[in-house]
Formats: sequence, C-alpha cells, structure tokens
Amino acid sequence: MKVIFSVLMLMLCAAENASAQESKQVVQLAKLEIDPAQLDNYKAALKEEVETALRVEPGVLMLYAMADKENPTRITLLEIYADQTAYQAHLQSPHFRKYKTGTKDMVKSLELTKTVPLFPGLKGKQ
Amino acid sequence: MKVIFSVLMLMLCAAENASAQESKQVVQLAKLEIDPAQLDNYKAALKEEVETALRVEPGVLMLYAMADKENPTRITLLEIYADQTAYQAHLQSPHFRKYKTGTKDMVKSLELTKTVPLFPGLKGKQ
Repeated sequence: MKVIFSVLMLMLCAAENASAQESKQVVQLAKLEIDPAQLDNYKAALKEEVETALRVEPGVLMLYAMADKENPTRITLLEIYADQTAYQAHLQSPHFRKYKTGTKDMVKSLELTKTVPLFPGLKGKQ
Repeated sequence: MKVIFSVLMLMLCAAENASAQESKQVVQLAKLEIDPAQLDNYKAALKEEVETALRVEPGVLMLYAMADKENPTRITLLEIYADQTAYQAHLQSPHFRKYKTGTKDMVKSLELTKTVPLFPGLKGKQ
C-alpha cells in the first residue's frame, strides 16, 4: 500500500514538474514576408540558423518553419524556448546574429506574436 | 566492407522513407477569433476535441493550440496530419463534428492556411 502511494506521489510530482516547466516556456509565432527574388537565399540562411540553434542550444525546444502553400513568400515559424533565459540567449547567439544581419534586406515584414499554450502537455505524437 | 555498405544503404533508405512520409503530411494553421463571453466554454470544447483526436486517431500527429498573449480571444492551432486521408477522416470523426457543431456560435472568425514545412526533419526536441 505504501509502495503504491509512493509511486502515485512520484507520478503526481513528475506531472506537476512537467507542467511547471511547460508554463515557463516562451512560445512565439513569427510571421514573415520575404522578397520573392531572394526567397532561395533566405531559406538557405534560415535553414543554417535553425539547424545550428536546435543542435547547440538546449533551451531551443522547437523551431518549425512553414511556408503558406498559396503564398510561398509568407513564412510562419513556431518557436518554443525552455524559458525567458533560453530565449534571450538565443537572440544573442552568433548563429542568430549572423542570420539576422544576413537576411535583413530579404525580409519585407516581420510580425512576432507571443502566445500561451492552451493545454499544457497536449501537443501531439511527435 | 560489405556490412558497412549495407548499413549505410539501410540508413539512407530509412532517411528517405522518413522524408517521404513527412512530405505527405497535411500541415495547417487555423486562426480563430472567439466571442469573449464564451471563451471558457470554447476552450473546454476544444480541449475535449484535441484530447480525443490525439488519443484515438493515429493519423492526427499534432494539434497544438495557442492563445495570443495580448489578445487571448485570438487562438492559433498548428495541425499536422499524417496525410490527406487522415485529415479527411478527422473532419468526419464524431468528436470533430461535435466540436464543430457545439462551437459554431462561439467562433467569430476562422481562417485556415495550408502550409508546407520548409525543412522536413527539422522541427525540435519535443
């Protein structure tokens, strides 16, 4: 009985811990409009930045880049950072700065929207 | 030497297979504006729908719901389905139909945007 109680308490703590960690996350949608003439160059620069950030920054949890099917110069990124510190560290990283400087004349507009996940722990299978 | 070649070929096939599977995915952004007076009811209905879809539909890979931090009645969903068949099956599912009927007077506007993932295989750590 004691063992079952301990296991249940551990499961509860683990779930609470996961939820607390998720509540600290910085979740942002970035909407960009890219100069059509420079779309391929932009994508190459973004790919390098995303690859590097996911590989070297433990606090960068997701950078998922999508292009609108009907308007491929409209790009949306879903960005998830572990917390505010991880987000600030990302903004200061050499790969982000290189991307930001290198693409500044390719980006016609940028809209950043901070969001709050509605159902922490409910996302998907991948 | 033959073994190394075989292993490399297997790795290449696995990577190609994963990429082919990902290229069939239906990736959609849903942007909704909810009636402020009915926001709590809407969230409850959406939560039930998302929970059920992720649990019972193998082809529903992601349903990630976010509210704008500054405008909590503006909700964005990132939806990823395994393929077109999985997407159509989801639209016909009893839980989606229940959600759609039950929330039709809560949703002030809905904008669906089909997207193409820019870098298949590059998403994140979770």
